[in-house]
Amino acid sequence: MKRDQVNPVVHVEYPDWVNSVVDWDDAYPTDEERMRLAIAVARTNVERATGGPFGAAIFESSSGRLVAVGMNSVVRLHNCTLHGEMMAFMMAQARVGSFTLSAPNLPAHELFTSCEPCAMCLGATLWSGVQRLVYGATREDASQLDFDEGPVFPESYRYLEERRIRIVRNVLRDEARAVLQMYRAKGGTIYNG
Amino acid sequence: MKRDQVNPVVHVEYPDWVNSVVDWDDAYPTDEERMRLAIAVARTNVERATGGPFGAAIFESSSGRLVAVGMNSVVRLHNCTLHGEMMAFMMAQARVGSFTLSAPNLPAHELFTSCEPCAMCLGATLWSGVQRLVYGATREDASQLDFDEGPVFPESYRYLEERRIRIVRNVLRDEARAVLQMYRAKGGTIYNG
Repeated sequence: MKRDQVNPVVHVEYPDWVNSVVDWDDAYPTDEERMRLAIAVARTNVERATGGPFGAAIFESSSGRLVAVGMNSVVRLHNCTLHGEMMAFMMAQARVGSFTLSAPNLPAHELFTSCEPCAMCLGATLWSGVQRLVYGATREDASQLDFDEGPVFPESYRYLEERRIRIVRNVLRDEARAVLQMYRAKGGTIYNG
Repeated sequence: MKRDQVNPVVHVEYPDWVNSVVDWDDAYPTDEERMRLAIAVARTNVERATGGPFGAAIFESSSGRLVAVGMNSVVRLHNCTLHGEMMAFMMAQARVGSFTLSAPNLPAHELFTSCEPCAMCLGATLWSGVQRLVYGATREDASQLDFDEGPVFPESYRYLEERRIRIVRNVLRDEARAVLQMYRAKGGTIYNG
């Protein structure tokens, strides 16, 4: 006999401030404008105390159309997998209705993230179908807050590049790092130290 | 002005067969019994055509109490992050109400997975709070089906071990590999080849 177990359903959703910060119809033509959105999401997540100091956004590469954002939601949603990049991938794929953002009927997509991805998020970047990864603050910046980034090595990036994912580093790094410092100043939780 | 956007909500839930295969009240005292459950979940996922040939389960280490299972749900739920291990982490954390399975009030937990974790899942293993990782089939077995496992290196495992996660390999490897072969024989989708 099997227990008639009521199984959990995990709901992944944005905090209520998202539409007041994200202008979904705006144009995001440049790398700086795209990164500035990812950083604004990270900053608001800290200001509203809805999660860690990390934000991400996914765009169509050519048009600059915004497809999804993501913000660290680990503590808010009791879920260790919900880093900003992971939420951005999930939301983007929900929006396009495909498990890959490089499906044949789709334009090229790219990920902007306010901080260098951890091992989990770098792996997911490969599965997501984005063709370009752009980050702001670095692993070293995050580790100054005692955030661990996990097993990421120079050959990890080479592995992605060999599969035609372009990597762009340190875009608006100072602005992204300022959000990390704000989080530290507020005494925010280090959930994977 | 901001668009009054209706944002997606991602629902992560089990396929409807789960309670007919998983005996939540059973005792799982040994590594073989725990792995056999992870493999049964993988096999049923293939038989019912609800996803890839990968299953996972999370147990309390000492008591052997089953906390959660997970099955690959990438195609079913249009979500590249939903590997078996990731769903198991999410469901376990939903059940205990914590973003880490090593919270001070919790007993030690461990992950059993029918196949060696990919880069994403290995990273998430670190964040999940499990203290032991046990796998069946290997990276080489998966790559024979053209499944890519991503940037995982010997030093990736060392990184986890240095953080006190014990790794146990090749438990019921032949049974786990048989599920991979069944999937190939059925012509299942290789979603990250």
